[in-house]
Amino acid sequence: MKIYEMKIAPNPRRVRIFLAEKGISEVEFVEMDLKNGENLTPEFRQKSPLGKVPVLELDDGRCICETVAICRYFEEIQPAPSLMGTTPFDKASIEMWQRWMELYFLLPTGMSFQHSTGYFADRMNPIPEWGEECRSQVLKFLDFMDDHLKDQDYIAGNKFSIADITALCALDFNRVNKIGIAPKQKNLKKWYERVCARASINA
Amino acid sequence: MKIYEMKIAPNPRRVRIFLAEKGISEVEFVEMDLKNGENLTPEFRQKSPLGKVPVLELDDGRCICETVAICRYFEEIQPAPSLMGTTPFDKASIEMWQRWMELYFLLPTGMSFQHSTGYFADRMNPIPEWGEECRSQVLKFLDFMDDHLKDQDYIAGNKFSIADITALCALDFNRVNKIGIAPKQKNLKKWYERVCARASINA
Repeated sequence: MKIYEMKIAPNPRRVRIFLAEKGISEVEFVEMDLKNGENLTPEFRQKSPLGKVPVLELDDGRCICETVAICRYFEEIQPAPSLMGTTPFDKASIEMWQRWMELYFLLPTGMSFQHSTGYFADRMNPIPEWGEECRSQVLKFLDFMDDHLKDQDYIAGNKFSIADITALCALDFNRVNKIGIAPKQKNLKKWYERVCARASINA
Repeated sequence: MKIYEMKIAPNPRRVRIFLAEKGISEVEFVEMDLKNGENLTPEFRQKSPLGKVPVLELDDGRCICETVAICRYFEEIQPAPSLMGTTPFDKASIEMWQRWMELYFLLPTGMSFQHSTGYFADRMNPIPEWGEECRSQVLKFLDFMDDHLKDQDYIAGNKFSIADITALCALDFNRVNKIGIAPKQKNLKKWYERVCARASINA
């Protein structure tokens, strides 16, 4: 199996941490140069129609795009340790939290970066006012997370899950937006230290 | 079980179609008035911290928010007929397509509507230029879908899945953006007719 990625980007990092947590190491990583559009060639679009990374290529040539879909594949072929839940309620609840971390934290984080800096201005239409709006959504969401974490150790309850991986990668990527944990966000800080103690985060 | 929803909104419709496909009918629906902020009360935020619908409330009071997480719960408690795949590859591939229909079709559809019309201007900051950008993303994505459907009957392959449900609800909701299938998009039109022949779409 091969994974096409760009190491500094947050989505490939989510997959690497997920694999490290599961102890899966038999995957080859192929580094792509997104800034220079290596992901936009017709050849790469055969693997990833929308030109995104990461992409998982199986040994038979079939490909799976989208971070969470790639994680789902590995969760299915190697269920333990579970990062996406085992009971119907836990699976649904972890999916809910994972989605919130993605839709209301990672997504506006990336759009704040792209729309404010014009990093991908050759292939998209940056709207600085939208970048600013996304930035303020991220700041508000950090308060929501801090409040949520007052009663529990991990994002989706008392067990580390894919929701923590998404949140961690979104938080760390916010260095590009010069956003970090505020001094008053003490629960968030404790959670961050707890998660950063795991070996997987260096994957 | 209860589902809090607003019937005309696209996300609750996704859940209703999903349940109809599975033949699950023992759910009570509670209509909410989102326009007047019934979803923003402290009481409702106990069920749905971000104030969104749909929300599934189990008989023991536990709640699951997020359309796909709610669908996941029902897929787990009643696997047949499967709408999210049965093998590891199919599960991942359907998740990939479901996500694409959501992230690159339903999401910009909703943002085009909200940012162009100011429908929720009392609780968000509409940016008309971003609404316009989302509109053009939707139009481009319809071409991508049309091309994708030239070789297959359904979004994620040869079987109806949750990806078709998301795509259908996004397409129908585009009436608010005055966007529909273009005459040249013949594959998309055939797919739409195929999907609209299912009884579940009136759920």
